[in-house]
Amino acid sequence: MSLDIIFLGTSSAIPTTSRWLPSIAIIRRGKVFLMDCGEGTQIRMLRMGISPLKVDTIMITHSHGDHFFGLLGLLQTMNILSRRDPLQIVASSKIIEFVETGLELTESIMGFELNFYETVEGFKLRRNDVTIEAFKVEHTDDSFGYIIREDDVWGEFIPEKALSLGVPMGPLWKKLQRGEEIVLEDGRIVTPSMVTKGIKRGLKIVYTGDTRPSENTIRAARGADILIHDSTFTSDRLERAMETLHSTAREAALIARAANVKLLILTHISARYTSPVSLLRDSVEVFKPVVVACDLLRVNVRRVDKNSILWRLDLP
Amino acid sequence: MSLDIIFLGTSSAIPTTSRWLPSIAIIRRGKVFLMDCGEGTQIRMLRMGISPLKVDTIMITHSHGDHFFGLLGLLQTMNILSRRDPLQIVASSKIIEFVETGLELTESIMGFELNFYETVEGFKLRRNDVTIEAFKVEHTDDSFGYIIREDDVWGEFIPEKALSLGVPMGPLWKKLQRGEEIVLEDGRIVTPSMVTKGIKRGLKIVYTGDTRPSENTIRAARGADILIHDSTFTSDRLERAMETLHSTAREAALIARAANVKLLILTHISARYTSPVSLLRDSVEVFKPVVVACDLLRVNVRRVDKNSILWRLDLP
Repeated sequence: MSLDIIFLGTSSAIPTTSRWLPSIAIIRRGKVFLMDCGEGTQIRMLRMGISPLKVDTIMITHSHGDHFFGLLGLLQTMNILSRRDPLQIVASSKIIEFVETGLELTESIMGFELNFYETVEGFKLRRNDVTIEAFKVEHTDDSFGYIIREDDVWGEFIPEKALSLGVPMGPLWKKLQRGEEIVLEDGRIVTPSMVTKGIKRGLKIVYTGDTRPSENTIRAARGADILIHDSTFTSDRLERAMETLHSTAREAALIARAANVKLLILTHISARYTSPVSLLRDSVEVFKPVVVACDLLRVNVRRVDKNSILWRLDLP
Repeated sequence: MSLDIIFLGTSSAIPTTSRWLPSIAIIRRGKVFLMDCGEGTQIRMLRMGISPLKVDTIMITHSHGDHFFGLLGLLQTMNILSRRDPLQIVASSKIIEFVETGLELTESIMGFELNFYETVEGFKLRRNDVTIEAFKVEHTDDSFGYIIREDDVWGEFIPEKALSLGVPMGPLWKKLQRGEEIVLEDGRIVTPSMVTKGIKRGLKIVYTGDTRPSENTIRAARGADILIHDSTFTSDRLERAMETLHSTAREAALIARAANVKLLILTHISARYTSPVSLLRDSVEVFKPVVVACDLLRVNVRRVDKNSILWRLDLP
């Protein structure tokens, strides 16, 4: 169980020479989950070798243009590259309307299925062994954060244990390995937990999008492995953060601490910060470990045991 | 009289790592005229130090997304940067509708005036001493090329000539210098041509956007200093060019020759060409001089005399 989180754009509102507009790719077993899709996302994907054909689901946090103006261009490119797999788009009704209007006005005939899902409170979508959930945050009326959660899987199968319990090698082993209970001929029940090295918990990644610090985020991020949080400003600009409904690095750290996450990653950085140092200082007093994301940063995450993860940063 | 043409994006349809989506900036006396505005244009502008506040007019050639999906993001950035000057957008009615819908859906309140002009046959717009004209090309129903033409200006004023004709120093000199005729007290008429070093012709730049080779382009580009022409393919893919309503490099050269332009620049290059050599070879047999544009190329052009220009290429 390992996945990559790639930061394609980490700026807020306007691009800078080093930070482009918001977009984060989660790559897992060859499939890509894209969270936000600011202008230039497809160019960043190209740079990072992420194929538009591998994108399974795109989630948009809210209807500020910097978070989704790259969507139409990416869809057009998917079409030109002869994509055939259906694509899932999770977004507010307003953004879905924008995409539909854009495709209509440009007379785009899509060669693949576009499945739109409107983000609402309690939204949940299964994609194979991954669950995507939305939670309301405090920014625009249609602002949502997303939880990406892998299924838990049974640990390694122990043949000796199966044999000692009288389970013969063959189809019954397969069932146990798939996580199913079996009933032996003598009526005894054998569960996967009796013949495996226990459950391996799936990873849980939470992304807030733009938001003020929120109880809802604490609830959503409880025990998460990674929390990616709005961190537009440092504490000396708290007033500005409140006015614009964003968070400071310190506030993001307070949320991370309250939710007891394993790693906090700060993103959506105002163009005024040319160095990450002040943001790092502002947050690290409250919570560790913390990473200030930069464009093209790749974070590889894997589960070590129930309570810990191993993460590695690859800088561009 | 000197201007810069900066190629912000030179690809066709989809971006590559080296060629982004179509956009060309003409910079003249601190004002920017933008022709097409593909996704990522504002990021390229940032890279080239072109301020969104200096853009005077944006012209879009047609309603294929790769030529205008960067428009909404650029407008949003202008707004965030507190632009106050009115902005002119010249585009087909469909694109104007797209922009208006996008601004409405994102609830964008613009702090500056947006003046939309619908591109139609015979369209003409004056911007100070520059005239913008549109001409129909052969691609989509709403495809137009643009002519950017500087006013001719009178050459250097020769005081000795004025004095010898009996024009006293003062307001009459000013009038002549501004290009106006004057009437002396004795009834004689003195024209600017009698007291200056003759007319200095303004530069004429023509951009086709996407098109098949067209008689209309020859007419529009007649005697132009620079023709920037669609050159999606080389001659071995003529059939593909015909199907997709684009031009080959050789066809662009034929147009340049027929229109007797001074310099041909090829752009809108298919992603299949990783080197410009084959495009250059294909065109140079027919017409010289020719330049295959690359992203971030800056072409400085100045008038030397009536029949010649001086141009310099700055490569990124």
